[in-house]
Amino acid sequence: MNWLRNCWYQAGWADEVSADTPLVRRILNEPILFFRGAHGDVIALVDRCPHRFAPLSAGRIDGDTVTCGYHGLAFGRAGSCVANPHGPVTSKMQVKAYEVVERHGALWVWMGDAADADHGLLPDLSFIDATPESARIQMYMPTAANYQLIADNIMDLSHADYLHPTSIGGIITGADATTREEGRHVIAEWHSSNCVPPPAYAPMVAPSERADIWTQVVWQPPGLMILSTAAMQVGEARTPGHESVTLHNMVPETETTTHYFMCSTRRFLVDNEGFNAMLRASLAHAFLNEDKPMLEKQQRSMGTSDLWALDPVLLKVDAGAVRARRKLDALLDAERLARP
Amino acid sequence: MNWLRNCWYQAGWADEVSADTPLVRRILNEPILFFRGAHGDVIALVDRCPHRFAPLSAGRIDGDTVTCGYHGLAFGRAGSCVANPHGPVTSKMQVKAYEVVERHGALWVWMGDAADADHGLLPDLSFIDATPESARIQMYMPTAANYQLIADNIMDLSHADYLHPTSIGGIITGADATTREEGRHVIAEWHSSNCVPPPAYAPMVAPSERADIWTQVVWQPPGLMILSTAAMQVGEARTPGHESVTLHNMVPETETTTHYFMCSTRRFLVDNEGFNAMLRASLAHAFLNEDKPMLEKQQRSMGTSDLWALDPVLLKVDAGAVRARRKLDALLDAERLARP
Amino acid sequence: MNWLRNCWYQAGWADEVSADTPLVRRILNEPILFFRGAHGDVIALVDRCPHRFAPLSAGRIDGDTVTCGYHGLAFGRAGSCVANPHGPVTSKMQVKAYEVVERHGALWVWMGDAADADHGLLPDLSFIDATPESARIQMYMPTAANYQLIADNIMDLSHADYLHPTSIGGIITGADATTREEGRHVIAEWHSSNCVPPPAYAPMVAPSERADIWTQVVWQPPGLMILSTAAMQVGEARTPGHESVTLHNMVPETETTTHYFMCSTRRFLVDNEGFNAMLRASLAHAFLNEDKPMLEKQQRSMGTSDLWALDPVLLKVDAGAVRARRKLDALLDAERLARP
Repeated sequence: MNWLRNCWYQAGWADEVSADTPLVRRILNEPILFFRGAHGDVIALVDRCPHRFAPLSAGRIDGDTVTCGYHGLAFGRAGSCVANPHGPVTSKMQVKAYEVVERHGALWVWMGDAADADHGLLPDLSFIDATPESARIQMYMPTAANYQLIADNIMDLSHADYLHPTSIGGIITGADATTREEGRHVIAEWHSSNCVPPPAYAPMVAPSERADIWTQVVWQPPGLMILSTAAMQVGEARTPGHESVTLHNMVPETETTTHYFMCSTRRFLVDNEGFNAMLRASLAHAFLNEDKPMLEKQQRSMGTSDLWALDPVLLKVDAGAVRARRKLDALLDAERLARP
Repeated sequence: MNWLRNCWYQAGWADEVSADTPLVRRILNEPILFFRGAHGDVIALVDRCPHRFAPLSAGRIDGDTVTCGYHGLAFGRAGSCVANPHGPVTSKMQVKAYEVVERHGALWVWMGDAADADHGLLPDLSFIDATPESARIQMYMPTAANYQLIADNIMDLSHADYLHPTSIGGIITGADATTREEGRHVIAEWHSSNCVPPPAYAPMVAPSERADIWTQVVWQPPGLMILSTAAMQVGEARTPGHESVTLHNMVPETETTTHYFMCSTRRFLVDNEGFNAMLRASLAHAFLNEDKPMLEKQQRSMGTSDLWALDPVLLKVDAGAVRARRKLDALLDAERLARP
Repeated sequence: MNWLRNCWYQAGWADEVSADTPLVRRILNEPILFFRGAHGDVIALVDRCPHRFAPLSAGRIDGDTVTCGYHGLAFGRAGSCVANPHGPVTSKMQVKAYEVVERHGALWVWMGDAADADHGLLPDLSFIDATPESARIQMYMPTAANYQLIADNIMDLSHADYLHPTSIGGIITGADATTREEGRHVIAEWHSSNCVPPPAYAPMVAPSERADIWTQVVWQPPGLMILSTAAMQVGEARTPGHESVTLHNMVPETETTTHYFMCSTRRFLVDNEGFNAMLRASLAHAFLNEDKPMLEKQQRSMGTSDLWALDPVLLKVDAGAVRARRKLDALLDAERLARP
């Protein structure tokens, strides 16, 4: 599998790693140990001692240092050995250290050389910070499917009409749809005018019969999408107060498994804890009972074949997904070409 | 794995597919969706949408049409797309459709091109139709072993003397045994004269000490066998009324797993429901506790090695099994040669 | 995987095979059936009939003979067919027979040609025979890690300081350590002078504050180690009565799984059954909760990569393990060169 390395992958939600709770997570098939150092910031080291390859996570963490539980080599935040109880420390006693940034309530890890880490490439998720907790729903949904298949699922929202007919489906097929590219972004947009709002949209609109609904997905590499949607009375202008904005972020664990991070935010009913609880249950239900089974069946059906090797029939609704895949391909080519 | 394609494989028993109950069964490692169309006949389509490869069985069936549950493409009985909610239907929107025939209480699928389906090659199992339900026992016994190993098990009935000593064993080893070929068939036959009948034969003979027992297996490609047996008083002539006739049909699911279909019929005690129930339990016991464990151990012992690659010791009792394998090899060669 | 064949592997403890209880154990990835013959000695045959590859262990044992449960071929102690109910016996009807010796309460199998079996190479474990049962603890501990990784664990006892800190750890790191070779043996030795004895050593020393502790591991190919240790009052001379001597024997089941045989003996508190029970529980706890999880994590971390392919950092404490590996490599090379 060929993965983009010079970019930030979400390693988790910030609250998954606390002073007492390290986290081991496999990203791009590399096992990584995340823990909070002496100053509370997150340190990330490959979870494998260079001596006998025991996982460092089976050892002991103290401040900025992790000590292997098998023979006692200790490594600091930069991955260098800081203690060898059996003799001198040498330069070969080194584990890979990853650059990690904590932002927007999430942990971001740079999978290329730490020295190349480009903070300018960190995704802007300030909409999360701007949302009070009572209007925010954060989830971690591991899924046994390739991350690009799951990104395709969001880039082609027409699936909702078939897979989620009782909650959010019914407004994408036949909507006025466009896709376009802006720099590193691919933007898919749907306008459904004068339509019957699906049940999940009911709380957003006045008790009227019909609505105008706007939906937009902005993709950025390698697999992060921001989905915004708003329902207005027919003819009413869209304002920020109408919108709900949701992060859908797909991070490869292995070739066929994905860390799926979701964070739903909204700008209406922001203080309604009861609505928040109901919405959380509804999102979890849709994912666990509708998306996840379909995505995992799709993956099993494809085996380890590349999508293109199977020569898929493409539909107009695939436009956004295909443009995102092609943009990612170009970035992968660029990384290949830049390799010494 | 190389499989014979231009022939009929039993896909199931006809009652496994009803108006409300589709069936997904993997045959020659292809996942196939079987369902009853508007007129009650069985339609068979590859269980994989050509758009995003979701299983069609995860969608919705209505009349002759199955609609993919992921993005709504619909396919008809011939496998052509009959509805694309996202744009025009093109000729590439097509799934493989299989020719299916319902006969002798079973479903038969042609695994070659549907256009080549040769109804003359359908096996003649009219003995099943001629048997009242009270004298018929139909089973489906999935087994984790290659279909040829399980066919060998029937072609060499001497195994019964060692694997089934308390029910049907004891009359094959040392019997007068012959094998011969007739067209597409391989026929193995055993005559045990003046022998002590095994317990399972007791209901077939007068309460005498000894009997003449006749057993015959007729194999046809790719792995269908009809086993006939009869016990007579010593010296008595065999008549159809003495016989029980059983289908043993081995259909490859994968290289190492088999759909084993069995149908036992008899021409004596035909209205005896109690005997039927006892016989069913006895057949199930012998298969589940004796044949299946041995066949699956044999398969695990062989791994994925071809039988010949392991250079087996051959015994005289292997004659029928080996002739059947060689006949199948010749048919496989012929298919290879006929390929454009 | 390349394994040393011309040597003795421990197949089990002698009491694992009784007149009524055969044993199937996979060694060097070969399934072997061990059973006691008519005279009570152990017979070892490959557990696979040469006719149809059914496991012989699914058949019937009678005296020196095992009869295949599938078609009735029978094999004797030398692996030759002794009965073919279907025709003449031929020389091809033969299974591999292994030379087996019962000694020191254990079963030893020669994995090379039985004709080459060299009884002079049987390991001398007379310390086991010399120990009364009340001072002997015998264990079988199957472990999902390569046998060389587990041998390394014993050859580098510094791991105890990190993995077993509450029982035996604390005296190896910083001890006076040496390794040397003597013929086929690699000997690692540690002297800890005037040290605080770890809890597990408490029963060996007078209730004093400090002790002199001696530890020695003698390795012999392919993976057998005898670990001796003794704690004395500071300045006191070591006598045999101070010692406890433990067998650690690693036998490859597959490339990544090992039959680990242990036998702990001691020359003090020999009649103390209560101490024996406590020590057994303590040894089992340390292995099951400390060694085994670490070894299996290490194996999973390494996958099926060879240790050297991963370019490990080596420490001074690896000296014994590396010398044992190199001695084994030389023996493997010699076997390769001797092959016709």
